[in-house]
Amino acid sequence: MSLLVVGSVAFDALESPYGKVDRTLGGAATYFAVAARFFVPVNLVAVVGEDFSEKDEQFLRRRGINLDGLERAPGKTFFWAGRYSQDLNERVTLATELNVFADFNPRLPEKYRSAEYVFLANIAPGLQRSVLHQVKVRPRLAALDTMNYWIERTNAELRETLHHVDILMINDAETRQLSNEHNLLLAARHIFRMGPSILVVKRGEHGAMMVDKRGVFSVPAFPLEEPHDPTGAGDSFAGGFMGYLASVRRHDDAALRRAMVYGSVLGSFSVERFGLDRLRTLKRSEINARARHFAKLTRFTL
Amino acid sequence: MSLLVVGSVAFDALESPYGKVDRTLGGAATYFAVAARFFVPVNLVAVVGEDFSEKDEQFLRRRGINLDGLERAPGKTFFWAGRYSQDLNERVTLATELNVFADFNPRLPEKYRSAEYVFLANIAPGLQRSVLHQVKVRPRLAALDTMNYWIERTNAELRETLHHVDILMINDAETRQLSNEHNLLLAARHIFRMGPSILVVKRGEHGAMMVDKRGVFSVPAFPLEEPHDPTGAGDSFAGGFMGYLASVRRHDDAALRRAMVYGSVLGSFSVERFGLDRLRTLKRSEINARARHFAKLTRFTL
Repeated sequence: MSLLVVGSVAFDALESPYGKVDRTLGGAATYFAVAARFFVPVNLVAVVGEDFSEKDEQFLRRRGINLDGLERAPGKTFFWAGRYSQDLNERVTLATELNVFADFNPRLPEKYRSAEYVFLANIAPGLQRSVLHQVKVRPRLAALDTMNYWIERTNAELRETLHHVDILMINDAETRQLSNEHNLLLAARHIFRMGPSILVVKRGEHGAMMVDKRGVFSVPAFPLEEPHDPTGAGDSFAGGFMGYLASVRRHDDAALRRAMVYGSVLGSFSVERFGLDRLRTLKRSEINARARHFAKLTRFTL
Repeated sequence: MSLLVVGSVAFDALESPYGKVDRTLGGAATYFAVAARFFVPVNLVAVVGEDFSEKDEQFLRRRGINLDGLERAPGKTFFWAGRYSQDLNERVTLATELNVFADFNPRLPEKYRSAEYVFLANIAPGLQRSVLHQVKVRPRLAALDTMNYWIERTNAELRETLHHVDILMINDAETRQLSNEHNLLLAARHIFRMGPSILVVKRGEHGAMMVDKRGVFSVPAFPLEEPHDPTGAGDSFAGGFMGYLASVRRHDDAALRRAMVYGSVLGSFSVERFGLDRLRTLKRSEINARARHFAKLTRFTL
């Protein structure tokens, strides 16, 4: 089994009503890898700068995340600073310094090229496609995240890339923007014509929804009294989702539903503390307990 | 068993991207009664004007809704006109003519006074309280709906009334406004101190959530490709919820969860067509089938 993630490793400065951190390890690929690693080994492709320390590297390596694909480039690591509103539903970007990420050109080490499970975190669609080209055999499952920036500016490239993935995993605003449909069922049908056969819509405090040809599956967000920081929630969700599927090597309906739950579990833990803090201390037994709690949250008999 | 509803009977003019109706029977108590009547007999207390026709009356009477408590007053029936946005998520009120509703003073016929299940639809909290006073014995279950208007203008009266109800059934914005808490779990705790022991939060396209001392239960909205008209969805939900509970005469956790599902089922049917059109033709077998569909929508095994 091999799970590959390609995306950003970054340092984040974060502010929310619950506190503030000046510089903490972040980035979509980092959240994804840390979350997925609870289920399976992870191969990471990303670029960092000279400010990425031995300590940062050891944190990832000790968790069993393979860093052969982590490129070091002269300059500084991608830096993002943002501030969340009182209710955590809005955020303003205070700084985006791409640094070495501006010239990121993902190159897969030979042993990554037989990846069976691939997650293309939110980067330029052209780079996502180049990663798929480097994988020798069509993966068992390839999933892709994207954002409004790429939908607006590189729409044709995004559509070309979408032909080659199985799962599109985006939020509701992105779903509507990409499909030009407000209704999420119609949007899903539109997106299926672009390539993916499964649409996972991340809806923040409203949970997540999966649509495929069999129908719809909904999972609520886990009710938390004091979420601290939504950064990385979607990537942690994706890590739990793909990590679980890679661990069971199946993606029938029952497995996909369970993946939605494990995704929601990882997403919910991620927002409990700043940055990666909660995932750092998280135990597999806590993941299992929260998955059971999700069952309690949604279960009924007729 | 007796289920009593007190609230508005109205005529509505409705506009949505899917069409337009100039004058159709509506009002919170009407939607509630029609939805609840699929489960149990319903006693209706409301006021109508001289324009409320024999045909309108026969529609309700033939469904088995008891109209002994329907007062006729000189003047016209409450009239509301509204227009929904493209995505149905926003609405503008084009006209509100209270007419005979302005002097509504609910009086319960003697045989309604032993009501065991009571739903106080959205009217002035003082009137809601007067209804509870007229019920001889404390009902097995009393539920209340309200809105921003009463939260802002008659807050003290609303709080006084809340002491005497078991279930508060409002939307998320109202929950936050009433409790001064953004977080819905903290809001629920705040609201429990006001009297109710169960909070049902209606979240429109995001479904509904129930919080009580045992915890949280979430149910998604039913995915519809073409909802036509959200008018009355919340009252249809309340009708399905209370109707189901009154029919089983239990409100343990399993029954309350089922009530949430039947509420969601009735709400989802209600929005499929304009006004009461879909509920008019709805069959009990369709309700049961959609409840099973809700199970499919949310079920997973770990």
